[in-house]
Amino acid sequence: MVSITSATVTDLRFPTSQTLDGSDAMNPDPDYSAAYLGLSTSNPDLTGCGFVFTIGRGNDIQAAAVAAVADRLVGRGLDELLEDPSAINRELTWDSQLRWLGPDKGVMHMAVGAVMNAVWDLRSKREGLPLWATLAHLEPAEVVALVDWTYLSDFLDPAQAREMLEERRSERDSRIAALRRDGLAAYNTSVGWLGYDDDKLDRLCRQALDDGFSTVKLKVGADLAEDHRRLGIARSAIGSDTALAIDANQRWSVPEAIAAIQHLAQFDLRWVEEPTHPDDVVGHATIAKAVHPVPIATGEHLANPTLAKQLLQLGGAQILQIDATRVAGVHDLVAMILLAAHAGVDVIPHAGGVGLCEAVQHFAFFNAASVAADPSRLTLEYVDHLHEHMSCPVEVTGGRYRLPTQPGAGTAFHPATAESFAYPEGAHWQE
Amino acid sequence: MVSITSATVTDLRFPTSQTLDGSDAMNPDPDYSAAYLGLSTSNPDLTGCGFVFTIGRGNDIQAAAVAAVADRLVGRGLDELLEDPSAINRELTWDSQLRWLGPDKGVMHMAVGAVMNAVWDLRSKREGLPLWATLAHLEPAEVVALVDWTYLSDFLDPAQAREMLEERRSERDSRIAALRRDGLAAYNTSVGWLGYDDDKLDRLCRQALDDGFSTVKLKVGADLAEDHRRLGIARSAIGSDTALAIDANQRWSVPEAIAAIQHLAQFDLRWVEEPTHPDDVVGHATIAKAVHPVPIATGEHLANPTLAKQLLQLGGAQILQIDATRVAGVHDLVAMILLAAHAGVDVIPHAGGVGLCEAVQHFAFFNAASVAADPSRLTLEYVDHLHEHMSCPVEVTGGRYRLPTQPGAGTAFHPATAESFAYPEGAHWQE
Repeated sequence: MVSITSATVTDLRFPTSQTLDGSDAMNPDPDYSAAYLGLSTSNPDLTGCGFVFTIGRGNDIQAAAVAAVADRLVGRGLDELLEDPSAINRELTWDSQLRWLGPDKGVMHMAVGAVMNAVWDLRSKREGLPLWATLAHLEPAEVVALVDWTYLSDFLDPAQAREMLEERRSERDSRIAALRRDGLAAYNTSVGWLGYDDDKLDRLCRQALDDGFSTVKLKVGADLAEDHRRLGIARSAIGSDTALAIDANQRWSVPEAIAAIQHLAQFDLRWVEEPTHPDDVVGHATIAKAVHPVPIATGEHLANPTLAKQLLQLGGAQILQIDATRVAGVHDLVAMILLAAHAGVDVIPHAGGVGLCEAVQHFAFFNAASVAADPSRLTLEYVDHLHEHMSCPVEVTGGRYRLPTQPGAGTAFHPATAESFAYPEGAHWQE
Repeated sequence: MVSITSATVTDLRFPTSQTLDGSDAMNPDPDYSAAYLGLSTSNPDLTGCGFVFTIGRGNDIQAAAVAAVADRLVGRGLDELLEDPSAINRELTWDSQLRWLGPDKGVMHMAVGAVMNAVWDLRSKREGLPLWATLAHLEPAEVVALVDWTYLSDFLDPAQAREMLEERRSERDSRIAALRRDGLAAYNTSVGWLGYDDDKLDRLCRQALDDGFSTVKLKVGADLAEDHRRLGIARSAIGSDTALAIDANQRWSVPEAIAAIQHLAQFDLRWVEEPTHPDDVVGHATIAKAVHPVPIATGEHLANPTLAKQLLQLGGAQILQIDATRVAGVHDLVAMILLAAHAGVDVIPHAGGVGLCEAVQHFAFFNAASVAADPSRLTLEYVDHLHEHMSCPVEVTGGRYRLPTQPGAGTAFHPATAESFAYPEGAHWQE
């Protein structure tokens, strides 16, 4: 019987602050990092990987939290673990002592996410399927059973969720065939980091068009006049047929957000992302109502499905941007995808960072195959950066993510990366 | 010039799970614990103390986070630090890399709280005042300047807050004189832990009356029929003149909470605490509306003032239960006290655990002296447990907290405790 023999956690850090890649109004100097978990098994060819993405300081604390949670799985048999991952998900999220440290938020909740994503990486690898396919092959009742409905049922209950999934069930195989043929539209954030000068912004916008992207996104929020000027440059470069989104990274208060969005709406915005504090679901609803019909997008910092539920109940977002490592992993993410579908809100995942594209694409493809009302409306963030560090880098061609084919959850880093960028002992940091 | 010379963090754990003291429907077996910080200074008689209360597992992760944040203060001069604590509060809460791990929630945010409370412990000790007096002696403009208004001003702006404080200013000295004479009403939670049998419940209720308490609280939420039965025992024991509150510790969904509260309302409930997930401000508002006029209380797990703002905006709580170590310390707590006053909601702090009574009483007395519209309506949780471990234990006589007189924030543990209950190396855990 195969069992989990050890849990290894590595503090990986990449010196991205040196180039201002990834700079925005809230995060001027991120060092993209990952608290990276490997669950070794008694089968030497089978390791489960998961991680929490962070932006530098504190990655050691996150790594310690991942190790504390993961240690509980060591010694357990794989058959039992993978037959009913909901059982271990419940055990970890409802551990009363660990739950006190949230509940369901922050370092401890994200640690559960790394562990649960590693468990699903094992399951998919053992099935020989990419994670999106493992999920898409579940029957509606099985998908519903993955979700912890305790705090969600006043908005969406399990019977409604199952009914919704049953309605889509007959389309699944044809949707997968279309995704295999056409992939899923990527949108491009690389053009508009705040640290880039005007020439670079103009050049990258034109390059994005040439590369086939139909949506580009700019960072805003540090200075409104400057945002206006940069949006002018971008809109000139891309013309009127390409969609233009902006991301304020939480920098505005509610009244500031309303004023800024009303001012910038003239650039025909596809969406406005993270206008204010991610916990402020009421504030998002106030903003969305005031700036209608400009769509509000948020979600990469939503700590749990209970907050997502409220955001959707209040109409605070027209786009939900799930993140693969912000919540407690697969089970929370499936919950958020179902809640969004019930609300008629598109799921357009957050990616970028390091490893986030590789991990979150599986949820985007699962949503497109099994849940979303209209897959043609979906897109998914793409940043052309650091993919060489992943074992199975995303394939993005012609502005589209291509359907992943390799087994697993996309959460494995390249072995050479783990050696070189381990902090502070790796070769890169010793130099 | 006095400066901070070192930051020492101790993982303190107490074996409370052995006696079922503190048992409730969510937390069946807590081991009350503290990630305990001491900021040593170059003045050997001056140490700043702060802590995060936890209930066992994960206290080591919390301690590591406190150490990571506290290390940033080592080497800094005390004059600069204490002259403008808002500067260091901003530096710690807006550190973009650490903020990614929340934002403003969970392990990292509570770590900032331990550090900021230790900074204020230093300030009060240097002034020779208890923390409540340090705060009560600030002028309205100084109190307003402690708060980070970024995400709050759509509900309460600094000018409104100052006006509210100016209105109370003339009453301050007479309020303090009354508090010095009469203290502040305590309410008693020790009677009703779920792990206690009927005889013990009955006996402790009668004892609470004899001890002068005017409110007692029972834990509920595991089984509605059992809750009904136990409330009957309690109401018989205390009669109709003593207030009876219940605490569900987040165990209900929104519809379950409504049904349960409607069923239990016959026992004339002073309040119903934590009916559902603490992040569900919309759910709290739904519950409060459905069970009106039964007051809903929550707050001990509210991660930050942005969530408190929304709870109050939506009318989700009629009582706000601040906790001394759940948020980022003094600055967040002052914000929450001002928001509650603006909403016309009473602040009735959460205490118990270990050290929480000693720490939070300062905020209750500050609120009563300088902020609350009607101090006579206020009360404060009391659990007669583990006070011997604190350097300055609370004084509760005749059912009332007595005004603290010793300098500092009440956050210092007894030196013998730190030696004995340090985990796992302390004498107690080695036995």
